[in-house]
Amino acid sequence: MFFASDNWAGASDTVMAALSSANDGFAPAYGEDDISRRVAARFNDIFEREVAVFFVATGSAANSLALAHSARPGGAIFCHDEAHVAVDECGCPEFMTGGSKLVRIKGAGGKIAPEGLAKALSGFQDGFVHHGRPQAVTITQSSEIGTVYTLDEIAAIKAVADTRALPLHMDGARFANALVSLGVTPAEMTWKAGVDLLSFGGTKNGCWCAEAVVIFDKDKADELAWLRKRAGQLFSKSRFIAAQFDGYLADDHWLDLARHSNAMAQKLADAVEASDNARLPARPEANETFIVVKKVRIPAMRDAGAAFYEWPADGLAPDQALRADEELIRLVTSFRTSEADIESFVALL
Amino acid sequence: MFFASDNWAGASDTVMAALSSANDGFAPAYGEDDISRRVAARFNDIFEREVAVFFVATGSAANSLALAHSARPGGAIFCHDEAHVAVDECGCPEFMTGGSKLVRIKGAGGKIAPEGLAKALSGFQDGFVHHGRPQAVTITQSSEIGTVYTLDEIAAIKAVADTRALPLHMDGARFANALVSLGVTPAEMTWKAGVDLLSFGGTKNGCWCAEAVVIFDKDKADELAWLRKRAGQLFSKSRFIAAQFDGYLADDHWLDLARHSNAMAQKLADAVEASDNARLPARPEANETFIVVKKVRIPAMRDAGAAFYEWPADGLAPDQALRADEELIRLVTSFRTSEADIESFVALL
Amino acid sequence: MFFASDNWAGASDTVMAALSSANDGFAPAYGEDDISRRVAARFNDIFEREVAVFFVATGSAANSLALAHSARPGGAIFCHDEAHVAVDECGCPEFMTGGSKLVRIKGAGGKIAPEGLAKALSGFQDGFVHHGRPQAVTITQSSEIGTVYTLDEIAAIKAVADTRALPLHMDGARFANALVSLGVTPAEMTWKAGVDLLSFGGTKNGCWCAEAVVIFDKDKADELAWLRKRAGQLFSKSRFIAAQFDGYLADDHWLDLARHSNAMAQKLADAVEASDNARLPARPEANETFIVVKKVRIPAMRDAGAAFYEWPADGLAPDQALRADEELIRLVTSFRTSEADIESFVALL
Amino acid sequence: MFFASDNWAGASDTVMAALSSANDGFAPAYGEDDISRRVAARFNDIFEREVAVFFVATGSAANSLALAHSARPGGAIFCHDEAHVAVDECGCPEFMTGGSKLVRIKGAGGKIAPEGLAKALSGFQDGFVHHGRPQAVTITQSSEIGTVYTLDEIAAIKAVADTRALPLHMDGARFANALVSLGVTPAEMTWKAGVDLLSFGGTKNGCWCAEAVVIFDKDKADELAWLRKRAGQLFSKSRFIAAQFDGYLADDHWLDLARHSNAMAQKLADAVEASDNARLPARPEANETFIVVKKVRIPAMRDAGAAFYEWPADGLAPDQALRADEELIRLVTSFRTSEADIESFVALL
Repeated sequence: MFFASDNWAGASDTVMAALSSANDGFAPAYGEDDISRRVAARFNDIFEREVAVFFVATGSAANSLALAHSARPGGAIFCHDEAHVAVDECGCPEFMTGGSKLVRIKGAGGKIAPEGLAKALSGFQDGFVHHGRPQAVTITQSSEIGTVYTLDEIAAIKAVADTRALPLHMDGARFANALVSLGVTPAEMTWKAGVDLLSFGGTKNGCWCAEAVVIFDKDKADELAWLRKRAGQLFSKSRFIAAQFDGYLADDHWLDLARHSNAMAQKLADAVEASDNARLPARPEANETFIVVKKVRIPAMRDAGAAFYEWPADGLAPDQALRADEELIRLVTSFRTSEADIESFVALL
Repeated sequence: MFFASDNWAGASDTVMAALSSANDGFAPAYGEDDISRRVAARFNDIFEREVAVFFVATGSAANSLALAHSARPGGAIFCHDEAHVAVDECGCPEFMTGGSKLVRIKGAGGKIAPEGLAKALSGFQDGFVHHGRPQAVTITQSSEIGTVYTLDEIAAIKAVADTRALPLHMDGARFANALVSLGVTPAEMTWKAGVDLLSFGGTKNGCWCAEAVVIFDKDKADELAWLRKRAGQLFSKSRFIAAQFDGYLADDHWLDLARHSNAMAQKLADAVEASDNARLPARPEANETFIVVKKVRIPAMRDAGAAFYEWPADGLAPDQALRADEELIRLVTSFRTSEADIESFVALL
Repeated sequence: MFFASDNWAGASDTVMAALSSANDGFAPAYGEDDISRRVAARFNDIFEREVAVFFVATGSAANSLALAHSARPGGAIFCHDEAHVAVDECGCPEFMTGGSKLVRIKGAGGKIAPEGLAKALSGFQDGFVHHGRPQAVTITQSSEIGTVYTLDEIAAIKAVADTRALPLHMDGARFANALVSLGVTPAEMTWKAGVDLLSFGGTKNGCWCAEAVVIFDKDKADELAWLRKRAGQLFSKSRFIAAQFDGYLADDHWLDLARHSNAMAQKLADAVEASDNARLPARPEANETFIVVKKVRIPAMRDAGAAFYEWPADGLAPDQALRADEELIRLVTSFRTSEADIESFVALL
Repeated sequence: MFFASDNWAGASDTVMAALSSANDGFAPAYGEDDISRRVAARFNDIFEREVAVFFVATGSAANSLALAHSARPGGAIFCHDEAHVAVDECGCPEFMTGGSKLVRIKGAGGKIAPEGLAKALSGFQDGFVHHGRPQAVTITQSSEIGTVYTLDEIAAIKAVADTRALPLHMDGARFANALVSLGVTPAEMTWKAGVDLLSFGGTKNGCWCAEAVVIFDKDKADELAWLRKRAGQLFSKSRFIAAQFDGYLADDHWLDLARHSNAMAQKLADAVEASDNARLPARPEANETFIVVKKVRIPAMRDAGAAFYEWPADGLAPDQALRADEELIRLVTSFRTSEADIESFVALL
């Protein structure tokens, strides 16, 4: 009953097998090996165009380096108020950008609305040096609270970003979960909707360490190679990152893993809706389910071995606000979550 | 015949097996898992005291974060003129320290001499704000040219560092190779000789990605946790780094790997000494062998599949200086280098 | 009718005379001169204790370096949502701190409330590396909208800061205006109320370039000398900053200047209250007066030579919100503002 | 007998008068005033083309921001081994550039030679991410030891910089002294010889605080406005910097001041050459004179009121090397140095 995070789940057997099989003699370091080349080509296939791919160690690094790509003095990055980049990365984006400012925008359902973005941007007049200047917009797909931007929503945000010529970055730590939730293609959910840079996450969905920055416009992409190396994020034995992606991306394995995670979230949501002892503020759209439980039940749930986090309830819609005896908890499902896990957990409610 | 770098060698089977066996169900993220705890304890054993260990993604990250630990405005870090931190890390140390300066000190045999350090330090008067101020001293063990500091040499450098209350950092990308070369214990080669912080490298010697910062004084060590996270270097599925170290450190596997690498270097050196077509400026002390060959031979060697780098010859002793028709090349041996590799290579000379 | 900012006002004759008289032959550079020593002693007198004083070029530099004094990886600085450091310094605080995050707290009347600070701090659990960690609290006195924290309000904020051992910084760009508004002593408004570091502004109140960081605990103050020099903020001919302060602080000249500026704001407020064509959302407490005028009047006012800024009205209390035909404007008075200026302006309403 | 530095000299009466006369009522802040516009036009005249001018607080700031203009991850800046940016700015250039590396090049007479630059550049192969990449070249005119690059020497350095498309920066803290020494025009000594960015120093030569970054290609110049503001270097009452330049540049006042300083250095050199108790390793070319004196004489000289610095003698030509009983001292003359000062000093030798 491990619902604390999808990063507790280890690696899928397929990914681990691909990793092991890559350990075959000598290979050039720093990404000049055959597997790296093969994986780079696969990214082109997946995104239906030439893209630039840069492996990095963590999701924080992917986000921060992607944002550093557009850094400039006085830069301001626009994100949701609960965005991982703003809340959970210990200032890595600020550090990697040389001190850019994250402008946090409140928005319902864990998502930026175009109007909110436009209003935030209006505080930065062109050429007015005191306020600094917009640099990039970033969204999380699927979001910090398990919702998913529709293609139209992404395009609408990009339209606002375009008014100031800003690149749109997508934090795809749970990219696959969003993709199968929408039932669209990677190209549709990214560059076709206006995304310029993507943090492509494999770790949470079945790799053990496979994160990449994907840049859709190859023209300026090379700058990321310098940013990455300067940040100590260029692996010498890079083939072992590539190998994980190789296994992950082959035969739609990554999508299968995400479908399973999402399905487990739906099953959990169904059970909560049927329960008298918990309630569901909103249906999950990916692999994170937020439920409201009686505070008094939590110790027993933990004693029984359930792992999960209590969560700030500020983002709940007013009609869903917590009562005094309630707590909001987050339940993350993964490729390794079983139906039995769900059933055992629900029995604890 | 792959002598380009020890990071071409992949991972040892033992390490890879340990990695695979760590993929056993759920485990807490970010280093709170059982394997991480076990490995932390093992580091205590190896170093014969309580130490603080922080896993990071790369050797550049280990060095740069270790140096960031003592960073302060106007800071100057003293290193050898050919140090990896100064030459091969794309400014990562400068970046991670917020702009500290690397003061490069020339020294014979790829090593800083105490006198050279003292002279460099004398340029920084206490409290004279214009020049900045010393922050740390860093040495590479084994060095960039395959030499090894003796325990006395380390202690002598520390004695100079002590005159300015500077921490001594050791870049141990090839720590094990130096250790078996000297035939001393890890404690003797580090804190007992005056080392305060260590970049403990596993990658080059048989892991695929296992680097750690080791801090001997646990009092101020926690600061590195923040530096690491801010740098995007905290792995979520951290158990897989721990697992590599688990296999690497068990049963002296790491020392066996290093002994083999070093032995291959000796074999190579013997062969070169016996050769009429190449010469050996100095005996290797670890797993890097620098030899002088006729320029004209190099294309054929490459055509035959030998991988190696040509190297700047500035550091050669005057009586070993290159003639016009000669080239200096670097040959790095690893756990995977076989006697057959050596023989095939020597046959090309 | 120049109400755009108090930094349009030039320098007071007294300050300019002091500056000129300092140009008397040779003097040691970098603050080792006699005038600098005399001014340092005067700061001790004014604050009734030994303090450390560091001259810098601008208010942004003073704020940013004062905040850099407590910088640490993952640092978060707590400020009001409209604080100058957050809105008007082009990211200088983020840059000087190496990427600290400004956490913006909404609060009525341009001031942080202790409850708001406590809530913001609660998002940062001790030792939870992902969120980063609190580093400092900063308040502006007088505030961005011309209000003034009472001594009790400052002490209450410090009490919350103390729960996390955070230094309290005061942005005193308009320090003198607040001081005479409260009728208290510099010591009472700073360290006696819990302020640890102060940006002491002279520029807006009659110097042409005289800003200083004042640190009340001299123990750790020296670090600022390095921060300042590294930021290119150490003047060589530093005596000319000292000379301005010398004239500014002698014979309560600074307080007289501020009393005049504040009195002009009161006169302006009185006139607006008496007017049918403008309204006053709140009485000014220092030298900034915000008034609501008919939009349609603004072009004529500008044509007549009035200089002022239109201002975002988000911070207005709900019962004072703008109507569709209204605009909020900011009027800043200075030592140079005359009663005639006020009368001419009011006649335009 | 104040020869410690030209920054001990205060301001010229002409400059101080211009400063005082600028204090005439209200004026727009941040450089939008009439005097600033007039001075900007004068810079165009002086340099015989449209240039972009940015006032900053100090010479370190001018240099560091000019170098930050070309900053990029992994950047390396090439300078002389004794350059002010490398030795005397407490890491300000490294800080302002986000961690660029200063590559120090030894060169006779305090000057970089084209061959030395070419060799240093050869260590940075195009696209090789490990080493970082060249970013800019900077020279000091007049140099740290009072020598002056000829126009041909500047052009030759630029020719090497051009092979890697690097901008050439000139640290002109003593620009005027070099100009009158060469007897050329500002345009000839800068952009006509290949200089792209200039730190134009007025402080050492008779202003009290007047430094500017001049950018000859206006196309990309605006970026400096953001860099400057982010560094807390944008003065609000900017007219008072402009006013100093106004007085400084009018009627060739700046050149007259420099001619006097240089003439005093020549007089000093003549006297030393005629002396039995001191020797002159090289004739001064600007306003810094380095002389070798008997160590034993120094205390008496200081007792008599002479102010000067002892200087590292590493840069002396071998045939001029210090004997055991000798010391190298630096004597800087300024607009305020009188013939009587020289005579009194020489009498002490």
